[in-house]
Amino acid sequence: MKAIQFLIGFALFALASSLASAYDPSPLQDLCVAINDHKDGVFVNGKFCKDPKLAKAEDFFLSGLDKPGNTENRLGFNVTNANVEQIPGLNTLGTSAVRIDYAPYGQNPPHTHPRATEILVVLEGTLYVGFVTSNQLNNTLIAKVLNKGDVFVFPIGLIHFQVNIGKTSAVAFAGFSSQFPGVITIADTVFGANPPINPDFLGKAFQLDPKIVKDLQDKFINGN
Amino acid sequence: MKAIQFLIGFALFALASSLASAYDPSPLQDLCVAINDHKDGVFVNGKFCKDPKLAKAEDFFLSGLDKPGNTENRLGFNVTNANVEQIPGLNTLGTSAVRIDYAPYGQNPPHTHPRATEILVVLEGTLYVGFVTSNQLNNTLIAKVLNKGDVFVFPIGLIHFQVNIGKTSAVAFAGFSSQFPGVITIADTVFGANPPINPDFLGKAFQLDPKIVKDLQDKFINGN
Amino acid sequence: MKAIQFLIGFALFALASSLASAYDPSPLQDLCVAINDHKDGVFVNGKFCKDPKLAKAEDFFLSGLDKPGNTENRLGFNVTNANVEQIPGLNTLGTSAVRIDYAPYGQNPPHTHPRATEILVVLEGTLYVGFVTSNQLNNTLIAKVLNKGDVFVFPIGLIHFQVNIGKTSAVAFAGFSSQFPGVITIADTVFGANPPINPDFLGKAFQLDPKIVKDLQDKFINGN
Amino acid sequence: MKAIQFLIGFALFALASSLASAYDPSPLQDLCVAINDHKDGVFVNGKFCKDPKLAKAEDFFLSGLDKPGNTENRLGFNVTNANVEQIPGLNTLGTSAVRIDYAPYGQNPPHTHPRATEILVVLEGTLYVGFVTSNQLNNTLIAKVLNKGDVFVFPIGLIHFQVNIGKTSAVAFAGFSSQFPGVITIADTVFGANPPINPDFLGKAFQLDPKIVKDLQDKFINGN
Amino acid sequence: MKAIQFLIGFALFALASSLASAYDPSPLQDLCVAINDHKDGVFVNGKFCKDPKLAKAEDFFLSGLDKPGNTENRLGFNVTNANVEQIPGLNTLGTSAVRIDYAPYGQNPPHTHPRATEILVVLEGTLYVGFVTSNQLNNTLIAKVLNKGDVFVFPIGLIHFQVNIGKTSAVAFAGFSSQFPGVITIADTVFGANPPINPDFLGKAFQLDPKIVKDLQDKFINGN
Amino acid sequence: MKAIQFLIGFALFALASSLASAYDPSPLQDLCVAINDHKDGVFVNGKFCKDPKLAKAEDFFLSGLDKPGNTENRLGFNVTNANVEQIPGLNTLGTSAVRIDYAPYGQNPPHTHPRATEILVVLEGTLYVGFVTSNQLNNTLIAKVLNKGDVFVFPIGLIHFQVNIGKTSAVAFAGFSSQFPGVITIADTVFGANPPINPDFLGKAFQLDPKIVKDLQDKFINGN
Repeated sequence: MKAIQFLIGFALFALASSLASAYDPSPLQDLCVAINDHKDGVFVNGKFCKDPKLAKAEDFFLSGLDKPGNTENRLGFNVTNANVEQIPGLNTLGTSAVRIDYAPYGQNPPHTHPRATEILVVLEGTLYVGFVTSNQLNNTLIAKVLNKGDVFVFPIGLIHFQVNIGKTSAVAFAGFSSQFPGVITIADTVFGANPPINPDFLGKAFQLDPKIVKDLQDKFINGN
Repeated sequence: MKAIQFLIGFALFALASSLASAYDPSPLQDLCVAINDHKDGVFVNGKFCKDPKLAKAEDFFLSGLDKPGNTENRLGFNVTNANVEQIPGLNTLGTSAVRIDYAPYGQNPPHTHPRATEILVVLEGTLYVGFVTSNQLNNTLIAKVLNKGDVFVFPIGLIHFQVNIGKTSAVAFAGFSSQFPGVITIADTVFGANPPINPDFLGKAFQLDPKIVKDLQDKFINGN
Repeated sequence: MKAIQFLIGFALFALASSLASAYDPSPLQDLCVAINDHKDGVFVNGKFCKDPKLAKAEDFFLSGLDKPGNTENRLGFNVTNANVEQIPGLNTLGTSAVRIDYAPYGQNPPHTHPRATEILVVLEGTLYVGFVTSNQLNNTLIAKVLNKGDVFVFPIGLIHFQVNIGKTSAVAFAGFSSQFPGVITIADTVFGANPPINPDFLGKAFQLDPKIVKDLQDKFINGN
Repeated sequence: MKAIQFLIGFALFALASSLASAYDPSPLQDLCVAINDHKDGVFVNGKFCKDPKLAKAEDFFLSGLDKPGNTENRLGFNVTNANVEQIPGLNTLGTSAVRIDYAPYGQNPPHTHPRATEILVVLEGTLYVGFVTSNQLNNTLIAKVLNKGDVFVFPIGLIHFQVNIGKTSAVAFAGFSSQFPGVITIADTVFGANPPINPDFLGKAFQLDPKIVKDLQDKFINGN
Repeated sequence: MKAIQFLIGFALFALASSLASAYDPSPLQDLCVAINDHKDGVFVNGKFCKDPKLAKAEDFFLSGLDKPGNTENRLGFNVTNANVEQIPGLNTLGTSAVRIDYAPYGQNPPHTHPRATEILVVLEGTLYVGFVTSNQLNNTLIAKVLNKGDVFVFPIGLIHFQVNIGKTSAVAFAGFSSQFPGVITIADTVFGANPPINPDFLGKAFQLDPKIVKDLQDKFINGN
Repeated sequence: MKAIQFLIGFALFALASSLASAYDPSPLQDLCVAINDHKDGVFVNGKFCKDPKLAKAEDFFLSGLDKPGNTENRLGFNVTNANVEQIPGLNTLGTSAVRIDYAPYGQNPPHTHPRATEILVVLEGTLYVGFVTSNQLNNTLIAKVLNKGDVFVFPIGLIHFQVNIGKTSAVAFAGFSSQFPGVITIADTVFGANPPINPDFLGKAFQLDPKIVKDLQDKFINGN
């Protein structure tokens, strides 16, 4: 009976899901509401979905983006996601959104979205924002101070950041060209990779003493 | 000399642009900032763009989304666009945004975006929103009342609407899966097409007396 | 045992299918013949398919497009589909077709295909056909009378129609850029949505007396 | 003045066009009607197009598909094209069509469309049709006899053919998943390549005496 | 119990896979490592994959491309594949590679990859390589002799070949724009299709005596 | 006359090009050989191309990948490109390649390709290679030691690196899923951005003393 349970379980988990994204493959039907109640097991490119005839308004809905996120952390920022993980109806539909809160002098540190361009609107506060082009365009910083009502675009795959340069909290909303843009925070990925990247290798790459690299890894991996 | 000028002009206008959109073909370089200063002439799928080495922060920037749009019109709503027409840096980048203002009881009437899914966040007010599925899913209305901080998704190509059901103004921001989603307002397209569609044909399609159709066409085309 | 049956059933239905569409994501193998024998349950973007080694000619075949469809209905037209629902071998292959029959003075009323461009060839009769561009292009009607052997194109996502303006039956074949184009008949979607859209909202949008809207809804929803 | 003319000409020709195709990149605007009046010079992926505001019904129109093509040739068949070369409005719209005429016992010989799936409807006659899967699926022939009203699908990129096995002429219409599917006739490409492929190489590949290959090349290249 | 086993088996096989390919639909998550341990049953466009959290280095790894393949066959060549069938981590990632070995005077005969462009680098030896354009470009042969360190490109869908014209073995590596490019060897597909294509039809298409065609079919199908 | 020259020049430069990339939009014709002889001016998504009838073998060819690159630099590595910038025939064809040379203990430092997956084959030497997943997959390092003949895959958009851990030079070839993958070297982009990112911001993001950041910027920007 164990084997059967295993098999059934395995089959069930085949209904699993995954992550999903911008410039996503186009939909092949009106709706493909993601099923999120898997545990582990089998996945597809994107997510399994339920019968479109069973779709209901709640599948396309999320509340709470009026609530400030908790910015009491080292960097002083918070991202509230509204992507396919929170809104299953977004599956196959190629877009998503976030609310970003910034404490005074808080920052959303250098990161990339491997699967989406971002368009950001400032609701409150003053942000210094920018992105850096690739090696072929000489790693040029394209940056600007934004105030309330200002809009800025961060192209897909490029490293970008936002810093609250004001004395008060700041808030922004952003839209993406993907149902699941993905986030690669540079510092966490390079110095906080788990298991750690050899500090000698990183030291050479970043022109840092390997001891400093080890220190950074200790901070980023263990939070010390 | 006239001929030469014509030829040069013609060639110049070949540098022209166009409109552009969601689930857009993916970019083939970091940046492709649209050139908008054409007059007429030659276009491509999307827009011609300038040398990426000349890109500057202003190309990715727009201000003014904190300003309420003018809702003093018959339907009581206003859309402020932030797409590739306003932000040339969006070209090839697959996303865009809008601010929508609603007067009390104003509405954004039934319409579709042929090239984008929309994700909408309510900033102020109370909206009744919904979309209708295609014939294959029995033209089901999927609708909901939204309050401040609520998010809702309108799938690509489906007819949808928002109505301010509160006594006060409402405001929403929306993101799209296209640099130029396009808008097809149903009433304007069907009854306001120019030249008009034969009222007998429309009368039969909409089960309306052709006289009523003519009346509608007079209203939608001539604003009477 | 019930639970097991449920689980097995659930797993089985994971083999389910869905609808599918134009400018479809490209195929990742030669063949992916859709499995249609699901009931409800789990879906993917497009359809689950069978082992390509089991593909047979019948999977790519449909008969009967020489038979006139039954046009004895209010609008006097009939569509015979040849898409992935009828031809499972079309799955992932990005195209489909229809036969359209028109009674004398019958019409295929204003509608859109959210996922496909249509190319139509007139086999018999005289059709007046047209499409309307989006708001950005001023809702321009682009229309023409077609005779036997004439071809016309309806761009993806735009509202279009065909009317038989002759005394005799008409027949056309059309190809699509999708395995499942989808159909949104405007009148059915707006006035026949189920549950109905609030008639006051529609009245304002369409500049119609809400009583007329209610009448229309009664006709389109209940067939009165 | 010559130089200027050359330069102008060169610039003008930049308005050139090209070929275009199935599973095509999606459109970035409602319409992008191809400009065909170039001579040589500069091209883009797909075609340059004119101002969408100047689009007219004729751009989306073609006549003459009711006329039988001339099948008086060695193989006894004729293809009448309705793709972006004939219908400029098809540019960016991802579909096209053909009429195929077959003399009694005529054939449309083994060929592939590198950029499109084909869906074929038989209007008159009896055809034996088939396609062959790739090496990975063991070069399996999937074939069937079709009669009037029958539909068959030829997957993108696979080698396929149609043979009129009846005593009378046959006619078919076909739709494609590309604005310009491309045609690679196997015999013409292998034995009729220009300049010819070394007959010793082809002899080994096709297990044919090089003399026979030379004979074939003489027939296919020079029509002897 | 048999029925249950069948059902479970059927469900299990739903975890099946398939083939996959170039210009592939883009990934919707970082990783989607293919599950290859199905037998038959249910497939998707591409492959089912495992929980990305369980991905390990071996999923992205293959060894042995330093080993010469066995070229002791009629044509004197060997392809060692490194695609999604051998490297499950390639699933959804849009590329793959091969090593090709050529005996002296061996050849990789005329073939196409329906889903990928190929970029080939010569490691050892002297190859004569070429591709033939489609009918629209007059079946032009574009060919060249390559030596060690030379690179050549074979465009997606076009017929191409490589011949070792030197006295020594040759070796090349090639990259593809697909996780599973597919291979259609022309001679095997046309003359080795199984069941065979009617030799009279092929005789007419290739201007060969049907007896020669039968001979060829005997050679290609039965290896005589 | 100056104005005319300017206009002509401007028009000529409209024949300009750009960069281009993996999971690229699919081709709309057999060939679209890039024109590279522009100076500045007007670009498209990808590159303008020449008349496909003028394509010749040299457009698809590059020599020299047998030559070791010069690894006498701080990091001890060299990349020899074979993408659309070097091989114009690659335009629209979705793939490219590189040769990478590593001095003993040299490294290709942490970087991403925003538009391509990479498949790498080791020709000589022993490399330690790895990539780090995104935040959603907990920045997991997936790494392995590779020897001659080993293959490894770096998924699109993820940060990855290769280190020569042997005493001798190492060589690898890699294929990409893009005609122009782009390269973002992390250290150069973050600490070598030009103009520099505010060192206080970077200090906070990377948990480094701003003085150390300034030092790094001096090294990466000015090469000190």
